[in-house]
Amino acid sequence: MIRIGVLGYGYWGPNIVRNLRSLDGCQVAMVCDRSSAALKRLKQAYPDQAVTTDPVELLTSAHIDAVAVVTPVCTHFELAKAALQNGKHVFIEKPFTATTQQAEELIELAERKSLKIMVDHTFLFTGAVRKMRQLIDEGVLGDLYYYDSTRVNLGLFQHDVSVIWDLAPHDLSIMDFLIQDKPEAVVATGEAHLNGHVDVAFITIYFPRNTIAHVNVNWLSPVKIRTTLIGGEKKMLVWNDLEADEKIKIYDKGVQMNNGREIYELLVSYRSGDMWAPRVEQTEALKVELNYFVDCVGRNETPVNDGVAGSRVVRLLEAADRSLRERGRAIEL
Amino acid sequence: MIRIGVLGYGYWGPNIVRNLRSLDGCQVAMVCDRSSAALKRLKQAYPDQAVTTDPVELLTSAHIDAVAVVTPVCTHFELAKAALQNGKHVFIEKPFTATTQQAEELIELAERKSLKIMVDHTFLFTGAVRKMRQLIDEGVLGDLYYYDSTRVNLGLFQHDVSVIWDLAPHDLSIMDFLIQDKPEAVVATGEAHLNGHVDVAFITIYFPRNTIAHVNVNWLSPVKIRTTLIGGEKKMLVWNDLEADEKIKIYDKGVQMNNGREIYELLVSYRSGDMWAPRVEQTEALKVELNYFVDCVGRNETPVNDGVAGSRVVRLLEAADRSLRERGRAIEL
Amino acid sequence: MIRIGVLGYGYWGPNIVRNLRSLDGCQVAMVCDRSSAALKRLKQAYPDQAVTTDPVELLTSAHIDAVAVVTPVCTHFELAKAALQNGKHVFIEKPFTATTQQAEELIELAERKSLKIMVDHTFLFTGAVRKMRQLIDEGVLGDLYYYDSTRVNLGLFQHDVSVIWDLAPHDLSIMDFLIQDKPEAVVATGEAHLNGHVDVAFITIYFPRNTIAHVNVNWLSPVKIRTTLIGGEKKMLVWNDLEADEKIKIYDKGVQMNNGREIYELLVSYRSGDMWAPRVEQTEALKVELNYFVDCVGRNETPVNDGVAGSRVVRLLEAADRSLRERGRAIEL
Amino acid sequence: MIRIGVLGYGYWGPNIVRNLRSLDGCQVAMVCDRSSAALKRLKQAYPDQAVTTDPVELLTSAHIDAVAVVTPVCTHFELAKAALQNGKHVFIEKPFTATTQQAEELIELAERKSLKIMVDHTFLFTGAVRKMRQLIDEGVLGDLYYYDSTRVNLGLFQHDVSVIWDLAPHDLSIMDFLIQDKPEAVVATGEAHLNGHVDVAFITIYFPRNTIAHVNVNWLSPVKIRTTLIGGEKKMLVWNDLEADEKIKIYDKGVQMNNGREIYELLVSYRSGDMWAPRVEQTEALKVELNYFVDCVGRNETPVNDGVAGSRVVRLLEAADRSLRERGRAIEL
Repeated sequence: MIRIGVLGYGYWGPNIVRNLRSLDGCQVAMVCDRSSAALKRLKQAYPDQAVTTDPVELLTSAHIDAVAVVTPVCTHFELAKAALQNGKHVFIEKPFTATTQQAEELIELAERKSLKIMVDHTFLFTGAVRKMRQLIDEGVLGDLYYYDSTRVNLGLFQHDVSVIWDLAPHDLSIMDFLIQDKPEAVVATGEAHLNGHVDVAFITIYFPRNTIAHVNVNWLSPVKIRTTLIGGEKKMLVWNDLEADEKIKIYDKGVQMNNGREIYELLVSYRSGDMWAPRVEQTEALKVELNYFVDCVGRNETPVNDGVAGSRVVRLLEAADRSLRERGRAIEL
Repeated sequence: MIRIGVLGYGYWGPNIVRNLRSLDGCQVAMVCDRSSAALKRLKQAYPDQAVTTDPVELLTSAHIDAVAVVTPVCTHFELAKAALQNGKHVFIEKPFTATTQQAEELIELAERKSLKIMVDHTFLFTGAVRKMRQLIDEGVLGDLYYYDSTRVNLGLFQHDVSVIWDLAPHDLSIMDFLIQDKPEAVVATGEAHLNGHVDVAFITIYFPRNTIAHVNVNWLSPVKIRTTLIGGEKKMLVWNDLEADEKIKIYDKGVQMNNGREIYELLVSYRSGDMWAPRVEQTEALKVELNYFVDCVGRNETPVNDGVAGSRVVRLLEAADRSLRERGRAIEL
Repeated sequence: MIRIGVLGYGYWGPNIVRNLRSLDGCQVAMVCDRSSAALKRLKQAYPDQAVTTDPVELLTSAHIDAVAVVTPVCTHFELAKAALQNGKHVFIEKPFTATTQQAEELIELAERKSLKIMVDHTFLFTGAVRKMRQLIDEGVLGDLYYYDSTRVNLGLFQHDVSVIWDLAPHDLSIMDFLIQDKPEAVVATGEAHLNGHVDVAFITIYFPRNTIAHVNVNWLSPVKIRTTLIGGEKKMLVWNDLEADEKIKIYDKGVQMNNGREIYELLVSYRSGDMWAPRVEQTEALKVELNYFVDCVGRNETPVNDGVAGSRVVRLLEAADRSLRERGRAIEL
Repeated sequence: MIRIGVLGYGYWGPNIVRNLRSLDGCQVAMVCDRSSAALKRLKQAYPDQAVTTDPVELLTSAHIDAVAVVTPVCTHFELAKAALQNGKHVFIEKPFTATTQQAEELIELAERKSLKIMVDHTFLFTGAVRKMRQLIDEGVLGDLYYYDSTRVNLGLFQHDVSVIWDLAPHDLSIMDFLIQDKPEAVVATGEAHLNGHVDVAFITIYFPRNTIAHVNVNWLSPVKIRTTLIGGEKKMLVWNDLEADEKIKIYDKGVQMNNGREIYELLVSYRSGDMWAPRVEQTEALKVELNYFVDCVGRNETPVNDGVAGSRVVRLLEAADRSLRERGRAIEL
């Protein structure tokens, strides 16, 4: 039985607490939030839950094995560091940290203490992303040509960071999970229109061998779009996360190049066959992920979404920030 | 009665000929194509049509007032120049020319000869684009925040140019028509996967005062997408050109910033009201445009899509090419 | 403070309990279910909730003012009757009762005891149905031509009744709410394919003055459809309840008849204008409805969805059953 | 070389002429229309085409082997009869005739004269319907549970008949092609709102062994819908004819009944697997059909859409009319 303390009961915290409480093998030992209104909401739902407004109480409790850090990113480093120093495993919201340096310090500290870090890249635990990973691993798509994601809607969900740090971690962590190659460079453009934070951004990530990724994130879109196109040598797919069913459609479409007889005569032929939408597991991703966290801690295994994975995403975010500030200068990684 | 000679009867030529033949006030005096198969197809449809395989015959005919150049872009300059030198007005496919320098030479020549040039930016004559221009002109959207267009499908329609020169002229000419400000810089990224021509590209265009435009063009998409989001201070709209009806949807949505009491406390409020899809004129855009060409020639008026407009688009394409080759370096305009 | 006892904690009961607990002005005094597994689930969510497996305990409790009957329809009459006899107001699931006779007996009993009955026609409390009612009341649609609803999906949610009694109560209660005229006759067709219960059915309801309604319900559809078309003399609308936003679209479309000069020459002209999707209130309908129940009880007001409304729907269901058994014979009401 | 005369150059005639002219193995010998405006339009497109305003000239011409009757249904019988009496094969618009009796007389006459009749059930020659027929023939769907089609839009395209005779022939001919069983009875409901012709109608067709079909046709719908659901024992499909690609989607979904231990305990389990959209042939159906007509005449073969098939559809239309007039009385066939 792993005893978990939850730091933060704002927007995402309730989902963490609800799922942890429904899992076997773990127990929510304590929930901390500085806001008494937040704790009141918690008590209404779970009258029996132990709570505190003091993070130190939670971080130093002898009855807690792991800490879930569900607070704004600017607090991640200090809280996670304190947790690790107190010998606690860490489950932490995305993005992992505000800088790569912070990420590396935490990774090093966890390693030294033989503790686990898991970064909440929730999407990796959705049926859709798992299915795409499987299709890529099995070679169904062939070599990847491009990964092109659009994640736009109306709404600033975080007021302390830009749209890049708010929305792009989803895409970058999924991309990092699906594309095995190491990214080479990042180019980002974008603009701030309201409060100084960039609210519209376009990020290109270069990979070796012509693979290219692109992420379009926007807080000022009148419609919500969650669509990713992945083009492969053999097949192409569209992932529309807003579809209730048929989230992933795989197209038996492709292009073939035949050399023509003369210069300038490139014969291109298009193949257009069936479309196929595999059934995708519908279990709540966060539940699967938290169960995996409990397992990794219990079995002393390194999660796929460990601190190192979190750090890779932070490095991309930092590069995107820098590129955007310099109007698209390519930042080598 | 304006007598028009048509150069080129390949993919787009039949649409030009069909529309010109249906117009009052003009006459298709001659059609030229080097391919006898093309001319045979033409004769099947219009047994009475005068034809030739020799462009010089058409270009020098005393019975022709204007020439429609419907050939690959690499031939535009020579053909248009010859037409102008022979005293003929020019209707020419997009993109206008292969270089800005060629564009300027043609503009200068036409001016000297008091001849008209019209570049076939067909989309400017669709009901949808006209309606968007009207909405912007009337201030319905307020100041523009962003213009974000996705134009992807499976298929290389031109084998001699990249996806940027094939698809982006549509978006860039529409953007040029809708955004009155002068673009400042271009950043482009992309990749070639098949035959050396870039087939996936992402172009950002910076405008003064925080307006930003983005164009996503892709020949390797399993699905066809033709969607443009335009975000304004007052309202936002989505133009989906694949919708049969309801091509344009205007959202009474917006964001308002209220300064909070403390630093980091920016109070953002979202307004979410009705959606409205205005009826959009359905007349074939090319017919409207060709009619406008005949009118401009007849009344000696300068078309909105004149050589100068065509040249602005070519300048953006050139900048995108250069930026892409240098992995996103911002090219100032 | 109204003290409510909830009978039944199966599929829908948890929604009733959750919403009642969140309301001011009422208190969930007791929850009853014969299944201890159901009560265990309840206790997990609300450890403090008083429960019982004995309906009599709940029905006769002196500390309960009203009873929510959330059980299969075959038990409605007995349970509601007992509740009323014990002086308790009744909130009851749809369909109200298994027969019109039962409905009338309950209405009469409630009246005699000065108690309220409210039938859970939840949809009447959605923003979409409220908005449609408003549009009809304000004459926006003009005289109604037809009401045509499709409600199909995969799944038998009730095993003791046919698809007509399971799905059509939604449509019939909405239709009853929107169309002020009294229905004249019902024609129903359908078929049973699996277990003897009709699983595919088509119901036509005739109203005075050419208004016609049609309901298509199907438990064997591979896709979920929740679409209602309403055609009016002035405007037409489409309600797609599966849309996240833009649930209701109003079309400025219509038909006009002009008498031609000769027989057989009816000049029909079509009007096709803008489309408009009004913002629709998103509050959870069940919460609005339960709040309204508490209000109606507190203020001694007759709800719009009272026993009489429930009875009208039961009468239509009975007529549909009879018509279907006789292969579409029109049943006069 | 079969020489064909075309009677009627109104709404559909131009499609017939265009396709016939593009076919090898046949020749459009003459086109007849009483309207000189229609013939003028024809001449503009095909200056070389022989025309007449006198149907007798065409019907008695010694240089014509077959006649395409592309006129309103009220004229079908007289024109087709005259054509057959003059020894000409007949290609005729749907619906075949205005009454079953007329249909039978024409069939008998054609048989006696050894001439072919083909009724223009164009949809049978679409890739989508062909694919569905193949899936049913191969047993992919298993036994058919239901066929449910919605064909609604704004517009009366025929002013002399009801929506049943205008739109339902499409559905009934497709249904007749896909369901091998013989229909047993028809129930129809509907209403006229504008000019006395029924403009909204709902038709149920009963087949042996629990198979049921339903057709929803409506001239007063603000949106165009062309969707057919087909439920089978093994698989279910949705045909959306308005989709550019993915017209047919086959769902690996189903229901299984397991007897429970006690009465009222029917265990139902739902199977929900992949979805699959087979590539569908895109060739213009009318071209395929006319080619087939030329083949059938040339090879002396009986077409699948012969007069007998046309007659089956007319019988259903007549039954629907009668049932509708009697408010849904089941008409046995």
